Amino acid sequence: MLYLTAVFLPFFILIIFGPGLIKALQYLNFGQQVRGEGPSSHLKKKGIPTMGGILIIFAILISSFIFLDLGTGAIWALITTLGMGLIGFLDDIIKIRSKRSLGLRAREKLLGQILVGLTLAIYVVFYSSTGKTILIPFTGWTFNPGYWLIPLIVFIVVGFTNAVNLTDGLDGLAAGVTFIVCTALSALCSALGYKQLALFGLIVSGACLGFIWFNSHPAQVFMGDVGALALGGAVSAIAVLTGTEFFLVIIGGIYVAEALSVMIQVAYFRLSGGKRIFRMTPLHHHYELGGLQEEKIVARFWISSIILAILGLLSYYIIR
Amino acid sequence: MLYLTAVFLPFFILIIFGPGLIKALQYLNFGQQVRGEGPSSHLKKKGIPTMGGILIIFAILISSFIFLDLGTGAIWALITTLGMGLIGFLDDIIKIRSKRSLGLRAREKLLGQILVGLTLAIYVVFYSSTGKTILIPFTGWTFNPGYWLIPLIVFIVVGFTNAVNLTDGLDGLAAGVTFIVCTALSALCSALGYKQLALFGLIVSGACLGFIWFNSHPAQVFMGDVGALALGGAVSAIAVLTGTEFFLVIIGGIYVAEALSVMIQVAYFRLSGGKRIFRMTPLHHHYELGGLQEEKIVARFWISSIILAILGLLSYYIIR
Repeated sequence: MLYLTAVFLPFFILIIFGPGLIKALQYLNFGQQVRGEGPSSHLKKKGIPTMGGILIIFAILISSFIFLDLGTGAIWALITTLGMGLIGFLDDIIKIRSKRSLGLRAREKLLGQILVGLTLAIYVVFYSSTGKTILIPFTGWTFNPGYWLIPLIVFIVVGFTNAVNLTDGLDGLAAGVTFIVCTALSALCSALGYKQLALFGLIVSGACLGFIWFNSHPAQVFMGDVGALALGGAVSAIAVLTGTEFFLVIIGGIYVAEALSVMIQVAYFRLSGGKRIFRMTPLHHHYELGGLQEEKIVARFWISSIILAILGLLSYYIIR
Repeated sequence: MLYLTAVFLPFFILIIFGPGLIKALQYLNFGQQVRGEGPSSHLKKKGIPTMGGILIIFAILISSFIFLDLGTGAIWALITTLGMGLIGFLDDIIKIRSKRSLGLRAREKLLGQILVGLTLAIYVVFYSSTGKTILIPFTGWTFNPGYWLIPLIVFIVVGFTNAVNLTDGLDGLAAGVTFIVCTALSALCSALGYKQLALFGLIVSGACLGFIWFNSHPAQVFMGDVGALALGGAVSAIAVLTGTEFFLVIIGGIYVAEALSVMIQVAYFRLSGGKRIFRMTPLHHHYELGGLQEEKIVARFWISSIILAILGLLSYYIIR
């Protein structure tokens, strides 16, 4: 439990360097280009600097060098985080340079994410000693999908990375949910004996906690794709390297709900010839347009995330 | 770790009965009489119903009957919670009936709190098998204060009860901090082998988490003194019954800071002949008048509380 120390370093890196970073990002004119299609109330967010995720990645990197044994498989969680962060960075930079709200083409972004996911999948299937057997929550059953593990891992990594990105739409939402998810994943990793990945999870938690200091409503900085994709890479890699993908589906249920809301909306829209189920997606916009204040939605999504995290941990403890 | 189930019942009691309670409290005209001396921005809070703490107590009571073995000392945590809740209830009721912002006289309130604290102290010193030896964080030293334990317990119980009450000044602040504190105390109790009190802590955590659903900014209901005093009774009783009073000082550092800010302000004001250190106390008002938004202060106090909770747990794990 001395692992808990690992939370402090990334947290204080964020707290100490946060204000300087915000000033630097403002100076570099890294103002967020608010999505044209978001709720109109979000227009006020224009001018708040984005790409704060750079500092999250920096804190994770420094802390990993100090706390982790990078000769173990844990380095692949870090590599996945950095790989996804790089894609997000390119996306953000293009957005800012071109002064438009969209960065990389969807196809390019997806291709990059698939490559990162595939790299992790190849490591797990051919080189890793862990992550080959997948544990099923509540039942205690395990299964070894053989080479089918490769597409499964790519699906999990790409899916969760994009789901975290979709969750990153309200002040403090993605960082708060990821703080809770990573803390719960760390507890799970620790219980399963994956000490290095438990430590990595706590490092990511600490970085998120420090980020919320500035990102909570009203936000002084956004994480940007560089942050959201990196965090998505981190949570999915922790699950993939420990065979706890299905626990992540429970613990990270908020990400799943956000992503599913978009998929359901699009599918229903096409099938019904133009009808909608949600007022707007991702899900948090549905509640926003329903009249709930941004802070309230964020608080309730955090609370739901805590309940899901406890449920996910219970789904392990009852089969222990 | 199956204890975690104990979070769900009080949580869902709050979620299910919360909307009905809010309507009932509004109907009964239990609108909060905003303190005349608070920041002027708080005047908009007039009309939001208070005494939501009634439901917190109800949820704790039902869940305790279901999950706890009330033949053990854990019943004294429940008794302290109910005793303090009753004092708060009287205070709230008098406020509402008299349509003024202050309820019981300070002297009456303090006397009631001392009686509740003294009852717990007498139980611990003369009847309990636990709580007689106090564990010192970081050092692992223990000491047995003998009969001096009685005034120490009264001081801890009365002090923390009032400190929680002072913390209850911004939307979601006291409930959020108490959720974090009780979760950390539960982890500590569990590590020390006090299973019943670990369960009780999780029950209180679950009730707080459910309450934040409605109490987060912008609040639909306040807990009132009935809630704040009950929660103060709960956290202090858990610490007193397990000899972890000094861990509570770290883990509940936000309560301590809020109470100290008031004491320092008053003492300095008198000694200096009218000068102030803080813009306004309790501490959260100092930041509010400094221009920070209410939601931001609450988020940062939560974050600080998480960091203090981790520090408090570490102060045990390093001596384990």
